[in-house]
Amino acid sequence: MAQKLTTRAENYSEWYNEVVAKADLAEHSDVRGCMVIKPYGYAIWEKMKDVLDAKFKETGHSNAYFPIFIPKSLFEAEEKNAEGFAKECAVVTHHRLKNDPDNPGKLIVDPESKLTEELVVRPTSEAIIWNTYKKWIQSYRDLPILINQWANVVRWEMRTRIFLRTAEFLWQEGHTAHQSKQEALEETERMNNVYAAFAEEYMAMPVVKGMKSDSERFAGADETYCIEAMMQDGKALQAGTSHFLGQNFAKAFDVKFTDKEGKQDYVWATSWGVSTRLMGALIMTHSDDEGLVLPPALAPIQVVAVPIFRSDEDLAAISEKFDELAKELRSRGISFKLDDDDNRRPGWKFAEYEAKGVPIRLAMGPRDLGNGSVEVARRDEKTKEIIDFDGAADHIESLLDEMQKNLFDKAFNFRAENTHKVDSYDEFKERIENEGGFFLAHWDGTEETEQKIKEDTKATIRCIPFDREEETGECMVTGKPSAGRVIFAKAY
Amino acid sequence: MAQKLTTRAENYSEWYNEVVAKADLAEHSDVRGCMVIKPYGYAIWEKMKDVLDAKFKETGHSNAYFPIFIPKSLFEAEEKNAEGFAKECAVVTHHRLKNDPDNPGKLIVDPESKLTEELVVRPTSEAIIWNTYKKWIQSYRDLPILINQWANVVRWEMRTRIFLRTAEFLWQEGHTAHQSKQEALEETERMNNVYAAFAEEYMAMPVVKGMKSDSERFAGADETYCIEAMMQDGKALQAGTSHFLGQNFAKAFDVKFTDKEGKQDYVWATSWGVSTRLMGALIMTHSDDEGLVLPPALAPIQVVAVPIFRSDEDLAAISEKFDELAKELRSRGISFKLDDDDNRRPGWKFAEYEAKGVPIRLAMGPRDLGNGSVEVARRDEKTKEIIDFDGAADHIESLLDEMQKNLFDKAFNFRAENTHKVDSYDEFKERIENEGGFFLAHWDGTEETEQKIKEDTKATIRCIPFDREEETGECMVTGKPSAGRVIFAKAY
Repeated sequence: MAQKLTTRAENYSEWYNEVVAKADLAEHSDVRGCMVIKPYGYAIWEKMKDVLDAKFKETGHSNAYFPIFIPKSLFEAEEKNAEGFAKECAVVTHHRLKNDPDNPGKLIVDPESKLTEELVVRPTSEAIIWNTYKKWIQSYRDLPILINQWANVVRWEMRTRIFLRTAEFLWQEGHTAHQSKQEALEETERMNNVYAAFAEEYMAMPVVKGMKSDSERFAGADETYCIEAMMQDGKALQAGTSHFLGQNFAKAFDVKFTDKEGKQDYVWATSWGVSTRLMGALIMTHSDDEGLVLPPALAPIQVVAVPIFRSDEDLAAISEKFDELAKELRSRGISFKLDDDDNRRPGWKFAEYEAKGVPIRLAMGPRDLGNGSVEVARRDEKTKEIIDFDGAADHIESLLDEMQKNLFDKAFNFRAENTHKVDSYDEFKERIENEGGFFLAHWDGTEETEQKIKEDTKATIRCIPFDREEETGECMVTGKPSAGRVIFAKAY
Repeated sequence: MAQKLTTRAENYSEWYNEVVAKADLAEHSDVRGCMVIKPYGYAIWEKMKDVLDAKFKETGHSNAYFPIFIPKSLFEAEEKNAEGFAKECAVVTHHRLKNDPDNPGKLIVDPESKLTEELVVRPTSEAIIWNTYKKWIQSYRDLPILINQWANVVRWEMRTRIFLRTAEFLWQEGHTAHQSKQEALEETERMNNVYAAFAEEYMAMPVVKGMKSDSERFAGADETYCIEAMMQDGKALQAGTSHFLGQNFAKAFDVKFTDKEGKQDYVWATSWGVSTRLMGALIMTHSDDEGLVLPPALAPIQVVAVPIFRSDEDLAAISEKFDELAKELRSRGISFKLDDDDNRRPGWKFAEYEAKGVPIRLAMGPRDLGNGSVEVARRDEKTKEIIDFDGAADHIESLLDEMQKNLFDKAFNFRAENTHKVDSYDEFKERIENEGGFFLAHWDGTEETEQKIKEDTKATIRCIPFDREEETGECMVTGKPSAGRVIFAKAY
């Protein structure tokens, strides 16, 4: 059996790295800050993509594809957006390599291939997309435009962590264009709700929906809505954002439309995205000291069956039973894998599938065969039971539903236990340092206070929750009036 | 109604551009050589992706993701591959922009952010992948590795055409690692066959399977297998390639495995890919002077229904009938769109869906309603018929099958009519210039002769067909012995 993981209590950050490695999800590449997403990790991402893509289409969006490169002159057009991303841009300056005259077999950049205008590798695509929408929009009849793109983006981050912060990552970015402010605001909220529903129903990860403060807003947006989740170390993770861009990009790229009355106005915009960062959120929400724990809805393998056998006859008889069950499960849309590899012992396999977070593991030996039974182990609670083979499919199907719900409930309760109202700044400082979690506190609404809190504690305002209680109060730092409590937390 | 297209006979190349534009598939962006794939074009690509992805999975492959950047020192490791792509590489040299001190609001590349090693934007991923496989492979137990990646790649082409040759394009690239030469060769052929089956069964595009000559081989491969299709102007289009890479990349990256007997050897490799170029092939195989023609298997909308109405009552009654039919068709997996937009006249809609290649267009007016009939127009033959509304779903379902077959047969017959055996070089030169098409000719097997033919006629060897007749002969140019006929054609 493989080596034990560092526990969460010992070193949460090291535990995370080991879960990623042991579940074979991804690894660092030899390219600074860029990861390799391995097949098992990618299979989870594919499941996420498929669900999200269907939700985007249900809400009227189509996919399209825009260039990865943004000419510098377009990139700088929306100044706030450009300023926000300028410091982390990979820049293409040349378009050719040539043989190094001094080192046979080696290549150098051909100085004669210097581009007349540098190209930024997209950190986000508003600029290139709005430069394109300009050609598509003349009249209200051309609106709304509801487009999504699945793509890779690059942000030159200095400190990287697999899935959570990488120089290149995969994401989707929706970019919509509307006739009115109201319609764009509705879209912003609609997509934030799509993200929240996905997080809660599929990832089994409860989220708080809310609005960012000015300092945490997307560069170039008028408002940023978000979903925030709590990880098992009490830190927050921003799991998705939906931006109301106002007319900022329309003005930067001069995109106007003629309305029904013949009047011209700038177009209203939104953009919204989730990324492979969700993989990090998924891992940190449910996994335990044995490895990955996956909600059944996103598990590439939902049920794995391990035959326990000494003879080929035993294996044949057990496999026959499992094949029968496999057929029944697959007809119900449940994925099933039989692992009859005889190079590995059952104990090794148990540990392997535990590390990979497979929700249900079945085992059957000659005695089970005789008894008409099968052993069912559930990953979330690490409990086992022997059940009748007859009716096993029904049992498994309802167990998967139960596990999906159980994981959500556990995460929900964990968040509830680690969310606190505080009114004193001293108490806040003490508890955020020693306990962690979400702190609902009054804030005077200024960037200065937010900045002071960040400097004192590293905590930031995660969001102004949409469903907060109506309760005015006094800022815990300055004592100035507060319109309501906001969520402070340390964050990934 | 929109303007008529330039006809194929008038100007094939201009016709192609107009079909792409009129069907709203894609357009040039303001980034040199990069295209924007618009929603309707992307929906076709998505259908292709879905079918191919399922075929890759059926043949045992998993998806994964590798970095877009390749450090120059890795890129140059396999010398032939590096040499083949060096002249068309986008190169990232810096990782930051900063404010231009001389131009407020403008950005410049920060010279202090120069990378210590330049990064090549992947033109293909063998280098980065084999550098990764090195860490994954020790023993025969780690083999085979059967991985595919869906990604964007960049090749700095000087002359670009939408879908056919663009600086950035979307593709899939399979990269596999094997214990033996035999196994790798089998994989190379298996995937070439997967491409051929996809092209013929889904794209309705007949292809010739064969092997490339030395000069047309992928840089870094020992053999390149391919599928070649004939476009309506008689030119060839390479629609997919599958490469037997021998041990070239394993040697360049020092990837060895220990076999069952404990001996060490370099790993054997394949790679294979198809790209958004297939969109160009699809367009040029079937489309006509009215616009795009799509095989039903890849049409995002298979059936469109246009109600002909003067009153809201008529529209309501017709819509009710169409809704009934829509339900029945969707239950059979047939996509259906009702276009009841009353801002557009039926004639405009007919032309629009014709340009977009929707296979079947239905129309129903008050008279049809009274008669219990519906008009069915098929895009491939541009014929119409009135059929009983009862049983329409059956009729449509079998008509879609018939159209799929009809498009293949037409393309197959066209290719047969435009494939010629020639033995005289004078005849070859005359006919390839005036008639176009595929020419089966004897060739002495040398690069010199191939080069001469290319210089004289612009024709190249498209492939050495796998199923060619056994027939030795004399090279049409040099009279030297030939092992069999190869296919010459001008190509995209």
